[in-house]
Amino acid sequence: MAQKPGIPKGTRDFSPEEVAKRNYIISVIRNQFELFGFRPIETPSFENSSTLMGKYGEEGDRLIFKILNSGDFLKKVDDKLYAEKDSVKLTGKISEKALRYDLTVPFARYVVQHQNEIDFPFKRYQIQPVWRADRPQKGRFREFYQCDADVVGSGSLWQEVEFVQLYDTVFTALGLRGVTIKMNNRKILSGIAEVIGAKDKLIDFTVALDKLDKIGEEGVKKEMQEKGIAPEAIAKVQPLFEFNGDTTEKLDRLATLLQTSEEGTKGVEELRFICGSITGTGLQSAILDLDVTLARGLNYYTGAIFEVSAPGVAMGSIGGGGRYDDLTGIFGLQGISGVGISFGLDRIYLVLEELGLFPETVTATSRVLFINFGEEEAFYSIKALQMLRKQGIKAELYPDNAKMKKQMQYADKRGIPFTVLVGEEEMQKEHYTLKNMQTGEQLAVSLDALIERLSGA
Amino acid sequence: MAQKPGIPKGTRDFSPEEVAKRNYIISVIRNQFELFGFRPIETPSFENSSTLMGKYGEEGDRLIFKILNSGDFLKKVDDKLYAEKDSVKLTGKISEKALRYDLTVPFARYVVQHQNEIDFPFKRYQIQPVWRADRPQKGRFREFYQCDADVVGSGSLWQEVEFVQLYDTVFTALGLRGVTIKMNNRKILSGIAEVIGAKDKLIDFTVALDKLDKIGEEGVKKEMQEKGIAPEAIAKVQPLFEFNGDTTEKLDRLATLLQTSEEGTKGVEELRFICGSITGTGLQSAILDLDVTLARGLNYYTGAIFEVSAPGVAMGSIGGGGRYDDLTGIFGLQGISGVGISFGLDRIYLVLEELGLFPETVTATSRVLFINFGEEEAFYSIKALQMLRKQGIKAELYPDNAKMKKQMQYADKRGIPFTVLVGEEEMQKEHYTLKNMQTGEQLAVSLDALIERLSGA
Repeated sequence: MAQKPGIPKGTRDFSPEEVAKRNYIISVIRNQFELFGFRPIETPSFENSSTLMGKYGEEGDRLIFKILNSGDFLKKVDDKLYAEKDSVKLTGKISEKALRYDLTVPFARYVVQHQNEIDFPFKRYQIQPVWRADRPQKGRFREFYQCDADVVGSGSLWQEVEFVQLYDTVFTALGLRGVTIKMNNRKILSGIAEVIGAKDKLIDFTVALDKLDKIGEEGVKKEMQEKGIAPEAIAKVQPLFEFNGDTTEKLDRLATLLQTSEEGTKGVEELRFICGSITGTGLQSAILDLDVTLARGLNYYTGAIFEVSAPGVAMGSIGGGGRYDDLTGIFGLQGISGVGISFGLDRIYLVLEELGLFPETVTATSRVLFINFGEEEAFYSIKALQMLRKQGIKAELYPDNAKMKKQMQYADKRGIPFTVLVGEEEMQKEHYTLKNMQTGEQLAVSLDALIERLSGA
Repeated sequence: MAQKPGIPKGTRDFSPEEVAKRNYIISVIRNQFELFGFRPIETPSFENSSTLMGKYGEEGDRLIFKILNSGDFLKKVDDKLYAEKDSVKLTGKISEKALRYDLTVPFARYVVQHQNEIDFPFKRYQIQPVWRADRPQKGRFREFYQCDADVVGSGSLWQEVEFVQLYDTVFTALGLRGVTIKMNNRKILSGIAEVIGAKDKLIDFTVALDKLDKIGEEGVKKEMQEKGIAPEAIAKVQPLFEFNGDTTEKLDRLATLLQTSEEGTKGVEELRFICGSITGTGLQSAILDLDVTLARGLNYYTGAIFEVSAPGVAMGSIGGGGRYDDLTGIFGLQGISGVGISFGLDRIYLVLEELGLFPETVTATSRVLFINFGEEEAFYSIKALQMLRKQGIKAELYPDNAKMKKQMQYADKRGIPFTVLVGEEEMQKEHYTLKNMQTGEQLAVSLDALIERLSGA
């Protein structure tokens, strides 16, 4: 009996229109990546489990999709262990491979494995799907693409400057003008924790601060208190809640606040360099903003932290990144600094859709359909199609000699703007009747004129 | 302790050069697909196991990668069944999803699931990876890309004609001139089996005939005999071993041989139509050849069968396809005829590499590297970089103020053809010193002149 077809929850089929729009975004990002000197790599969809497990915390381990060993996977499983019927213990015995969870750990693995072939600093980009066994919900999928660009092997702050420019040029090129690039620095957060005397509570402190947008000033203070941060310490944080002005003003105030902290002062200097350089070169349409509450992935980042939000749309961040000082250490290559950013393809898609920013040409289907009136006419058409395609014109022949109405409906539904009608008269005169599907206008033209008319926008 | 990094056998990391070359092949194929009116779809990397299992035969089922259920996957497993410790039985209980094995079954599932959104005839292409737990060996991988174009919903032979032209234009565009497109028809094979009185032995007969290239005439005859095909029947096949001449001559001889078989005669007519149309329209560089021994995927195809081989290289087929009359029946949509072809990306890659056919520009890295002499100079350079990138010139700044020799070596190793040196004098005069890395020639130029010189080929 035939099955009713479906796909696993959290996964998606993409229609021709959706693929075209996604490919448009990817091509804009890829183009800018390459203009900035980044080069593509690709890694396998699955890695050895040992490469991935333990790299994303306990929750991450749970969300990694494991692949069952091939063949008789129970053969080598010890009877005693098997009898325990313990999923966690059994997993390690019957599954040695897992689908990648992100592109960063595979990248670190790649750098270490290929270190002798790589010319550092290595600027790579990677656009591939990743998989997470997360609970599917609106905008969260079990299979989705990540678009990452990273540089490893240089601690230079020019990378941070260039990444801000990269965000600016990509979003400007996508027509999404006025994105806000929020920036912070792990050293600033450490410095604040230090000067208020809560250095040992850095994570609790920043996790609370990060929620300012959501729970407000009082909420943040309450959470800090609950986490055991002293009232005097919380009082000292007060300036951060009234943190207005342009980046220079903010940096000046931070410099004063953090003058007793070496690390904090270093963070201010780094941000001053980045903001100053960006002010000097200018941005096309993005706005750079200093946000001391930004903490995103704090366990990970050691320097700059970035996050990008779209203008005028209620949507989480559409990009983010930062500097991490020891990416490759987990695979035995120490002291290689890295910095990277990523683009949120699915969210960018939703934003462009909502704001109507996809160019119409992106989903352009065939420009012309040749109506099929029979064998001889179709043969005459096929010869013309060859010429059109050589000129780069997307063109097709309706394959069957169906009723004219049906063929015209097909062109209509597909959004094909022109049809060509070839009958006995056309073949005799070596002409083509070109019909504009929108206006209904018909015109008898030569092959050259046909090419010319269909080539135009 | 740090792990020694590696990847699962049968999978590959792709370096920047390899990704660039692969993307070049894919972009040529995709461009031609779209010129012919095909539109892209994408399906999830994993499907419900029920969608895939039982569609590729017993061997196929074994080669499908199964994904372990998330969470406590043993919880719902019956104790009695568990105690059997039977891998095959347990698989169905602990794994509900599997990585796709090819693009054809997911496509069939897609067509049935989305039949109400699709305007038939539906011309789709799909370029995505597939996974098979096959024994890895030279040129055979556990993760590899398939590039398929199919039309469903039309029995018109014009599709076959267009697919031959599509092969021709793709390989011509790739610079691989003179590929041989071998064509046969399932109906011809059935017809031959019928007229020699071995209709019940069609599969044995065609499998043996398919080996003519490898085991020769005597080998084929011997195998037919072993499979129980009568000597008189084998004698009747004799004309197929002396099957020379152009397609018209071959078709005439086939017509005579098969005149008593209705199906065989239909096959001859179909081939006559396709070959005649191709002769009429011409091919750019490919050669169309009729090969009655071609049987590829016989259980599957019902009409035309295609296979493409590269000229002057010892390599299996670099493409293949055919017509199948009931693609979607397994998912409950009957009577939808389909025809499709695929391109063998990995083999095409090897052929282009061996014949030196990749254009040099494909792996072009940055066109220019700005040498970093310090903070002020770097800032001056960053502003120029912005202008260059706006003009579409791939350009980068060496991030650190390292020794000049080191920076120059980086440009050399990366194959970057130009460097720019910016010192005090250049900044004062608003100039840039452009160095040709091949000739060593240095030239002081304005920004406009810099852009002009770097834009050229």
